[in-house]
Amino acid sequence: MFFLVCTVSLLSSLALSSPVPDDPLFKHIDDHKHEYIQRLKEMVAIESDSSDPSKRDQVLQIMQVTKDYILQIGGKVEMAELGEQEFSPGVKLPLPPVILAEFGNDTNKPTVCFYGHMDVQPAKKVDGWKTDPYILTEEDGNLYGRGTSDDKGQVLALLHAVESVKEFGLPVNVKLFIEGMEEVGSNGLEPLVEKKKDTFFSNVDYIVVTDTPWLSTKPGITYGARGNCYFFIEVDGARRDLHSGGFGGTVYEPMSDLIYLLGTLADVEGKILIPGIYDDVLPLTEEEKELYKDLVFDLKDLKRDTGVETFLHSTKEELLMHRWRFPSLSIHGIEGAFSGSGTKTVIPAKVIGKFSIRQVPKMNPSVVEKQVVSDYLENKFAERKSPNKMKVSMVIGAQPWLANMGEPQYLAARKAVKRVFNVDADMIRAGGTIPIAKDFEDILGKSVMLLGVGGPDDAPHGQNEKISMHNYIEGTKLYASFLQELPSF
Amino acid sequence: MFFLVCTVSLLSSLALSSPVPDDPLFKHIDDHKHEYIQRLKEMVAIESDSSDPSKRDQVLQIMQVTKDYILQIGGKVEMAELGEQEFSPGVKLPLPPVILAEFGNDTNKPTVCFYGHMDVQPAKKVDGWKTDPYILTEEDGNLYGRGTSDDKGQVLALLHAVESVKEFGLPVNVKLFIEGMEEVGSNGLEPLVEKKKDTFFSNVDYIVVTDTPWLSTKPGITYGARGNCYFFIEVDGARRDLHSGGFGGTVYEPMSDLIYLLGTLADVEGKILIPGIYDDVLPLTEEEKELYKDLVFDLKDLKRDTGVETFLHSTKEELLMHRWRFPSLSIHGIEGAFSGSGTKTVIPAKVIGKFSIRQVPKMNPSVVEKQVVSDYLENKFAERKSPNKMKVSMVIGAQPWLANMGEPQYLAARKAVKRVFNVDADMIRAGGTIPIAKDFEDILGKSVMLLGVGGPDDAPHGQNEKISMHNYIEGTKLYASFLQELPSF
Repeated sequence: MFFLVCTVSLLSSLALSSPVPDDPLFKHIDDHKHEYIQRLKEMVAIESDSSDPSKRDQVLQIMQVTKDYILQIGGKVEMAELGEQEFSPGVKLPLPPVILAEFGNDTNKPTVCFYGHMDVQPAKKVDGWKTDPYILTEEDGNLYGRGTSDDKGQVLALLHAVESVKEFGLPVNVKLFIEGMEEVGSNGLEPLVEKKKDTFFSNVDYIVVTDTPWLSTKPGITYGARGNCYFFIEVDGARRDLHSGGFGGTVYEPMSDLIYLLGTLADVEGKILIPGIYDDVLPLTEEEKELYKDLVFDLKDLKRDTGVETFLHSTKEELLMHRWRFPSLSIHGIEGAFSGSGTKTVIPAKVIGKFSIRQVPKMNPSVVEKQVVSDYLENKFAERKSPNKMKVSMVIGAQPWLANMGEPQYLAARKAVKRVFNVDADMIRAGGTIPIAKDFEDILGKSVMLLGVGGPDDAPHGQNEKISMHNYIEGTKLYASFLQELPSF
Repeated sequence: MFFLVCTVSLLSSLALSSPVPDDPLFKHIDDHKHEYIQRLKEMVAIESDSSDPSKRDQVLQIMQVTKDYILQIGGKVEMAELGEQEFSPGVKLPLPPVILAEFGNDTNKPTVCFYGHMDVQPAKKVDGWKTDPYILTEEDGNLYGRGTSDDKGQVLALLHAVESVKEFGLPVNVKLFIEGMEEVGSNGLEPLVEKKKDTFFSNVDYIVVTDTPWLSTKPGITYGARGNCYFFIEVDGARRDLHSGGFGGTVYEPMSDLIYLLGTLADVEGKILIPGIYDDVLPLTEEEKELYKDLVFDLKDLKRDTGVETFLHSTKEELLMHRWRFPSLSIHGIEGAFSGSGTKTVIPAKVIGKFSIRQVPKMNPSVVEKQVVSDYLENKFAERKSPNKMKVSMVIGAQPWLANMGEPQYLAARKAVKRVFNVDADMIRAGGTIPIAKDFEDILGKSVMLLGVGGPDDAPHGQNEKISMHNYIEGTKLYASFLQELPSF
């Protein structure tokens, strides 16, 4: 059994390992492997959980340690202070500063700025970790520990890449923008980007986000994300909750109106029934279709992972297109109704139904808002002739994001993948929103790309988070190759 | 302004006060008014909150004090022990004993058994009480305090009635069945009734529950209650909750199926859409219709109380019939979906929709169950062709209750109302269930009646619970008259 596992693991590692064993850059990286692991171990040991006020000093510490390491490998660093955060009334904590670093400032070279973060999600051994989440543990080719994949491991892979390429001469200017509050909503980040637009970011040509997983064991480059238009339908009846004994059969029940409205949104197959909603969806081109063909993605794995037996689509292409490039509608729940276990004979007085539409290019949130609110739900409710009060509001209107894959940084990244892994990169998107990508693009007007080295099963927010040794080391080579390839495009 | 209020109050009190001022029974009661208030004050001061483990000693105390008072006025008392209650794991508390009392044992006289309870709902001044809930406070003709209406005041009105009638000779045997756990579900009561069926209850002819309000300021006698068939619709999809970004548009969402099913249950006007559901509803007779004509009930008051502007019915007759004698369906809520404030982009994996049907005579819960589950919802779901798993279950199937108003105790109660108030009693029903009435009827096979003296606005489970002085004293006369009138029927 052990032999078999070994063989499979060797084969898969051979299949994906560097096709150029004599590449001196790769040799340099391979030679420093143990150092890289040691450095990850040191970073993982710092419990930089940004959600826990008692660990804020460790978040400050990780930013300091990261800064020191950047200085050590020859970068220049500015720490941008963000002030204080009011954690709970009266409890103020210092916000960790953002690292703004720079390697090189040659106006003849292109400048690429990488984004990453050094804070982590909460983790406790008792939550079901096999090992101490803050002690890096190597097992079966994986490195277990909180932050190994999200995002300490990815940031370190990048730093080791910069360090390695420097040995051979850095052909690009590299900037780093590394924060410590990503896991709790990137406090203060947007104003900082705005503030640094004409200074730190003024000469930046490309933005690369190093905080993303691949779709499979094959490297992936993320070029788009869906948006999110989140709606509340509020139906208001009596002044207070009523008892179904005393009032059942005598009042127009708000829940009944809400259920009716929610029931008009989509059919059993998930097709959105709101007229016009699909009008602005970008048509699928042959070229785009082509991108889906070679994606490594197995529905069987997805079934095993989720316990879902039948998906809405039976091929990987259809399924991924509906995750990435077609809109969807989900009903999340109802606020104000009975939601406990057991029974309660209440007629809720005011209920708020919550649903969202994952919209895609070129759907405009304000158009979606009009289609949903005034063109559809308000009419549906008027037709129903209920005397209850109804109000629909769009509480989130996050834009989708779609990059131009013809930009030099995409071409360079694809070439780097080919160079390191001898395969064509999976060109992938995210089904959810990626606020940081959209923010960078909107504020700076620069081309953004997500080039991460996380694996698809790293469990970044779960128990037993890991990064595979393969992803960590070959990922370092990927970033290094990207830096070397970029000037050619 | 004060004058006006005074006048109205005087007029209404004149209109409803005793038409026989020289009745020696009534004079006796009026003469003891201050004593009765003093006794209520003593009882209210005992914080017999059965839901609070730290107050269990006071529940035990109220049962003891009540027993002592019954002995003092010449009753015989047995305390039926109920053992212990496991409050939380490892915390056992003694259950208060039930008082089984008896006044007279003459086989030539009819025997009436009254049910009441001496425990109360929780109450804290900080919850919004104007006065200390455990200090009886007289204000504007009302007696404020926890338990004044529910049910200490009603039990005391009865005991004072028994005491008063005894002065003139008790023409009936009186039994009392008084518990101390009503507010938390009458622990141990049903087995006790079963156990005492052939002893304490063997010679009982009539059961009267003294724990109910009137519909208005006019005295009411309750002769029926609706039942409750409570259903869970469980829809099961993935093994775990999914993110709407990663899975929206790719899975059959359980919420979508549930919303669809809940939407097929009733129309906007509350009409139940389940075939056959109205088949067994007793037809409305002319005689029954007549009972609704003189009910004192103003929709304006109901609008003011609830904030509802438009009810499903515009006349008091229609509205009350739909509260009391027609079935209704209410959707209470959903377990398992997002129910918090704010936004969450979840696709809930397993959701349980909860609704209930208030069924009426002669609707049988097991027939309703079949109509809802296998004849309707299972078919609707099959037609929808969703691969999710769906299960409907009826978790409560409480029978409706309807008494025969031709029974002597009803005739005696109506005569007593006429004698004390010079009006015809409102013959009323409850929209909710009255488990105690149904239990007594089912176990003992005796005729049950609800004759309470609570007012419609006493707020029995709310802040500032009160009983009006009028209801307390004239209610005592009502019970006293009932005892005197009963043998004539």
